[in-house]
Amino acid sequence: MLSMARQDKIITLTTDFGWRDGTVGAMKGVILDICPQARLVDLAHDIAPQDVVAAALVLEGAVPYFPRGTVHLAVVDPGVGGSRRALALQTPLSFFVGPDNGIFELVWKAAEAHFGLGNLKAVYLEEKKYFLEKISPTFHGRDIFAPVAAHIANGLSIDRLGPPVMRLHRLGIPETSPLSGGGVQGMVISFDRFGNAITSIRHEELRQVGPADGVSVWLGRRRIGPLHRTFSDVDEGEPVAYVGSTDRLELAIRNGSLREKFKVRRREKVVVSPAGSA
Amino acid sequence: MLSMARQDKIITLTTDFGWRDGTVGAMKGVILDICPQARLVDLAHDIAPQDVVAAALVLEGAVPYFPRGTVHLAVVDPGVGGSRRALALQTPLSFFVGPDNGIFELVWKAAEAHFGLGNLKAVYLEEKKYFLEKISPTFHGRDIFAPVAAHIANGLSIDRLGPPVMRLHRLGIPETSPLSGGGVQGMVISFDRFGNAITSIRHEELRQVGPADGVSVWLGRRRIGPLHRTFSDVDEGEPVAYVGSTDRLELAIRNGSLREKFKVRRREKVVVSPAGSA
Amino acid sequence: MLSMARQDKIITLTTDFGWRDGTVGAMKGVILDICPQARLVDLAHDIAPQDVVAAALVLEGAVPYFPRGTVHLAVVDPGVGGSRRALALQTPLSFFVGPDNGIFELVWKAAEAHFGLGNLKAVYLEEKKYFLEKISPTFHGRDIFAPVAAHIANGLSIDRLGPPVMRLHRLGIPETSPLSGGGVQGMVISFDRFGNAITSIRHEELRQVGPADGVSVWLGRRRIGPLHRTFSDVDEGEPVAYVGSTDRLELAIRNGSLREKFKVRRREKVVVSPAGSA
Repeated sequence: MLSMARQDKIITLTTDFGWRDGTVGAMKGVILDICPQARLVDLAHDIAPQDVVAAALVLEGAVPYFPRGTVHLAVVDPGVGGSRRALALQTPLSFFVGPDNGIFELVWKAAEAHFGLGNLKAVYLEEKKYFLEKISPTFHGRDIFAPVAAHIANGLSIDRLGPPVMRLHRLGIPETSPLSGGGVQGMVISFDRFGNAITSIRHEELRQVGPADGVSVWLGRRRIGPLHRTFSDVDEGEPVAYVGSTDRLELAIRNGSLREKFKVRRREKVVVSPAGSA
Repeated sequence: MLSMARQDKIITLTTDFGWRDGTVGAMKGVILDICPQARLVDLAHDIAPQDVVAAALVLEGAVPYFPRGTVHLAVVDPGVGGSRRALALQTPLSFFVGPDNGIFELVWKAAEAHFGLGNLKAVYLEEKKYFLEKISPTFHGRDIFAPVAAHIANGLSIDRLGPPVMRLHRLGIPETSPLSGGGVQGMVISFDRFGNAITSIRHEELRQVGPADGVSVWLGRRRIGPLHRTFSDVDEGEPVAYVGSTDRLELAIRNGSLREKFKVRRREKVVVSPAGSA
Repeated sequence: MLSMARQDKIITLTTDFGWRDGTVGAMKGVILDICPQARLVDLAHDIAPQDVVAAALVLEGAVPYFPRGTVHLAVVDPGVGGSRRALALQTPLSFFVGPDNGIFELVWKAAEAHFGLGNLKAVYLEEKKYFLEKISPTFHGRDIFAPVAAHIANGLSIDRLGPPVMRLHRLGIPETSPLSGGGVQGMVISFDRFGNAITSIRHEELRQVGPADGVSVWLGRRRIGPLHRTFSDVDEGEPVAYVGSTDRLELAIRNGSLREKFKVRRREKVVVSPAGSA
């Protein structure tokens, strides 16, 4: 029983293909044909079209919880068929297969911080014998990434897939900057399904500004309030700032959509300052 | 083979997390890490945000068809991190794990009617050793409910999880009331994906009013018609009342959306009266 | 290990039920109760309500990639409970279960071309002992198609399900017609999630018109351009014609929605003509 469980390789799927076309199904068929014992796990398919940052956040939120050896296939790929390259990555915890467009930037940085760069591996996908025979220039998810993920689940070493990557494409997911006076400035980088704003500011940066009730959180010129624990710390319809489940500062409306109510857009400025200051 | 099949525990997932964030994936990762042989089955993730009634109806519609021993994990949880408690329930057919907010009200009542209260068990989740170590106050789905569901799938007795529940939180999904003259009054309690209205009136109550062609169904002041068998009993674009697949009275427009066409809202009154009356 | 993999039958699901109701879950429960070792694979559930053509295209795109013996359950079923009949089909590659409304038209034609009609089998579902006991007139997906798919996965011969089909219901997915002057005329038959238009014109028909840079593609009165390889061959926001991943001519806006930008509708005329001509 145990040995079987170990042999059953998990392959997760993250795409912007939606649930209305045949594309997700085609990828699954390819995987199961090459690796019949693969266990397919859908992470997210309704990512907004071409939203590589959102896909990077999906992986950031889900990858750390999967068992060792899981293969994560992620295809949000606006550059398909053009000059962007194709990747397989390996950390002591996981494998990743997808386009070299920054989709793995957050999980890669986290792995680098956690395991050290010397324990990570990255290769370009060049060995065509692990692809399908016919490659559509608009659907590498099916013809390149799915078969490669299945071969990795079958035990193929990623060294066999192509040459080492010299430098991963950088998406440039925004970071934060310290403010004079002890605050920190970041921005809204995405929204979740509830219309909550995900920011570039992380928990450890918040702690440096001050204790939860000793900080003020601002969205543009709008004061959201101090840092709360959870939604129900404010009344329904009220805005709330809190540390979200991926350790990022998030802004929400309790039982509402902050994104819609405040017409927030990505890259809108978010500032956390000591409560006494301006 | 058979013994393996029995050991492979099914865990279903029902949430309002959508398919665009990392939250569904994080829960799946947690489960597979604790119970590697779990078989994950997605029921519904696009439930409208915070719509506990809709989630209760998803479970009502799906749970009776799953094999004995299935674990149903359901997380529509507007009160997360606040004072609402966390539950595990057991019936002779199924296990349930989720918030104590009424999400299990319909399946629990059905189990009570079918198996008798003496054969059901309910506990609060208090034993922290079955949770993840760090509990986010905004994501108990990942940190409490998913690991508990996985431990139950591993065979853990729910008695080990915490003290017995004295009284489940009541959502108060509306019931019906008899009308003088032999009719029954209920209301619209939800809508399905097609814009069909699901009502609080059940098949057995309809039968007491009269035979299918001997009743009149009203939505507010609008007469829908007699009771039909199925959509194609009326012309395209026409309204139709019928007993839906969960034995509830439903109202629809054939090949259209009743919800949109008639601008119906939840709690709108629905009356079934003997055809001769009113 | 290998023998187990062969015994684990794959059943795919394609519906317009969405991810917010209990209907997809009910079908999965029925399948797992009858065939505990079934491996459920979700293809598409967000097909637009009653859009049988879109479902046929989902199957066209995904079916060829699945391993031999896969059972494809497809339920987009506006005629449920009426006079339309129920089907099981068998090709040397796959099984299909669903309504006789044209949903299998494209995969059936492809199988006919590939394997020859003599190697295909089609039966009506009439043997009630393979259905659930109680049949809802609005949900054959749960009560007829799901149990039949599970029995087929268990090894039941489709001959046991009912009499042979004399003639499948024809959906009449539009074909193309040659134009004087060497061009070909077809139409938009569907849209994918990105707003790309899928046309009735296939790759081999394009080749007969001329080389990729020797043809002009027109959408109604609008010239899209020559045939390109992929999106990134044009600038962002520009229209592009290319052979899509299912070998059909597709029209798109790079990183945008052609459907929205040009307000395209189904059945809009698409013409491919030699570049020199009108």
